[in-house]
Amino acid sequence: MSDRRPISFARGAPSLDIIDVEGLKAAAEAAFAADPGGLTGYGTAVGYPPLREWIAERHGVAAENVIVTNGSMQADAFLFDALVSSGDTVVVELPTYDRTLLALRNRGADVRMVELEPDGIDVAALERVLVAGARPKLAHIIPNFQNPAGYTLSLAKRERLLELARTYGFVLFEDDPYVELRFSGERVPAMVSLDPESVVYASSFSKTIAPGIRVGYLVGPREIIARIERLATGVYISPNMVAQGIVNQFVRSGAIERSIQTVKQALRARVDALAAGLERELPEARFVKPEGGYFMWVELPRGTDVDALHAAAAARGVQFVRGRDFVLEGYENTLRLAYSGVTVEEIERGTALLAEAYREVTAATTA
Amino acid sequence: MSDRRPISFARGAPSLDIIDVEGLKAAAEAAFAADPGGLTGYGTAVGYPPLREWIAERHGVAAENVIVTNGSMQADAFLFDALVSSGDTVVVELPTYDRTLLALRNRGADVRMVELEPDGIDVAALERVLVAGARPKLAHIIPNFQNPAGYTLSLAKRERLLELARTYGFVLFEDDPYVELRFSGERVPAMVSLDPESVVYASSFSKTIAPGIRVGYLVGPREIIARIERLATGVYISPNMVAQGIVNQFVRSGAIERSIQTVKQALRARVDALAAGLERELPEARFVKPEGGYFMWVELPRGTDVDALHAAAAARGVQFVRGRDFVLEGYENTLRLAYSGVTVEEIERGTALLAEAYREVTAATTA
Repeated sequence: MSDRRPISFARGAPSLDIIDVEGLKAAAEAAFAADPGGLTGYGTAVGYPPLREWIAERHGVAAENVIVTNGSMQADAFLFDALVSSGDTVVVELPTYDRTLLALRNRGADVRMVELEPDGIDVAALERVLVAGARPKLAHIIPNFQNPAGYTLSLAKRERLLELARTYGFVLFEDDPYVELRFSGERVPAMVSLDPESVVYASSFSKTIAPGIRVGYLVGPREIIARIERLATGVYISPNMVAQGIVNQFVRSGAIERSIQTVKQALRARVDALAAGLERELPEARFVKPEGGYFMWVELPRGTDVDALHAAAAARGVQFVRGRDFVLEGYENTLRLAYSGVTVEEIERGTALLAEAYREVTAATTA
Repeated sequence: MSDRRPISFARGAPSLDIIDVEGLKAAAEAAFAADPGGLTGYGTAVGYPPLREWIAERHGVAAENVIVTNGSMQADAFLFDALVSSGDTVVVELPTYDRTLLALRNRGADVRMVELEPDGIDVAALERVLVAGARPKLAHIIPNFQNPAGYTLSLAKRERLLELARTYGFVLFEDDPYVELRFSGERVPAMVSLDPESVVYASSFSKTIAPGIRVGYLVGPREIIARIERLATGVYISPNMVAQGIVNQFVRSGAIERSIQTVKQALRARVDALAAGLERELPEARFVKPEGGYFMWVELPRGTDVDALHAAAAARGVQFVRGRDFVLEGYENTLRLAYSGVTVEEIERGTALLAEAYREVTAATTA
């Protein structure tokens, strides 16, 4: 283990070098100058009105279909509070984002995990679950560059999911924080744009501006947004007006387009380095190279002791998250590698160290 | 009714002229320059570490006793989620802040209201409730310049409350957003400083910097703070790092001391105008002139139709909140006048119009 800083493939967060700090500073100054009353006053639970308008325009909906929150996780929490009671069935992807899984289990939801394939959730398996009698309130889907798998839902499956939602009367929760970070392939239409009445859509500015700004939002049917507005009023009166005012200036000045370009270029270089590093150093690793986002899912040969690998890698200053953290059981031979917070040089060094750890662990197992 | 903007004695919010917008702009620039990584990264659920440290130092406690949140109402919500289950008894003041009342009722709490006197909650009445068998989890107390009454809890009653909390094993929730806004009289020690193990203390920067910055905090026993940290992680990962970074620069640069002076001077002038206006125009009004804060509680002669007064005042462009919004029943002849968001000139005009409305309503009643 060197005295260099740890190489973290664990945290799904951007490195500081791809955040437009100067742009944020300029946006803050412009925001206070343009609307001191709006930034410093209480505001309302639906969010800072000009930003809400901008989001509504981008989605081609009315402002009443949008609520802007303190980060999209808070938006998820409100949505679950509005729609999910203890004992209610909720469909999620297998694997899925660990915090969503925890939030649903903490609410006593009956969580049904449906396997994720490289082109998205197995809609035939979902249909079998529905035909067998499950009546979910909600299906949580991360359509683009899924966390943790990095996979993207195909258009055909999006359309099938909407049909199932209409037939079986559940809400599709389209959780889409990574959509703007596509660095290869072609954009697939959002489900909310195909059928706005069946979908509640969530996204955030954490990946396109910065996580610390904590601004996320929901787009959905007015009745659901109005219910969430009432919940939000009770919890915090209003979300952060200063942060939302800064985001409003950042998006309207065009800084966000430059920021997204910077982030995408870096992510493309990083995923290339990661794929090349794994192919070179650890050919046992199987993966689908993502077309965007932060994460790559890696499968190692069945029987690989990923706990031991996790420890052996940590001893070399390399961190990742075990695949089993994203499921309820199984997936013992998988891991999630986040490439958003590491430089190309760190990725090259990190994959070599990861392979070294793998050799140590498998030598011990077969010895 | 004139075409001038309404005179709002309703909203407990500062007018823009007493907010240091330039100071906020400078603090934002300094914050991004000083710690770009800390402001833009996810941070942690306990809040922005340098601000947490500053708050801990001000209260003479360790950082582990502090959690910084998105406004103090979110802090209240976390505290209630941590300590109050459906059916649990919670003591509150009568009258009390309407949002607190609603938050507790929404959680199914058994809310026991104990009458507020000009020197604070009637501790003898509280003791009778306890002796009769009530075993509250929590007692919610707004010690300084209470909302809605404007009253301040005496030192003797603070000490008595702490004794009762220790004897009967409940947590004192000292909700203290207005403490820095004392413009006359002498500061009374906070209960949390007298017995840190019996109290969870909440405050915020909404009244000393600006509401839109949405930064509040709790100070309390480590075990309770740690529980709330876990809840906060699940709800939003971390609070707003940008806003907390701005507050950190604002408080450490000394801007907050100037801001507090500005606010206090304005509030003193406004409360003087309000008291003089009522004495001159509406001698039937009974009130205790507050020593700080935003609110004055007004009692009109028994039998006054405050609903009719509310409508008659609104027709003249004057708004206030009816006293009954702060209680479960009764208090039909009371109202809350907030003087935080109105100028002296508006107060003079507003009290005259309120008196005019009162004459109209009482003439109708006695006719």
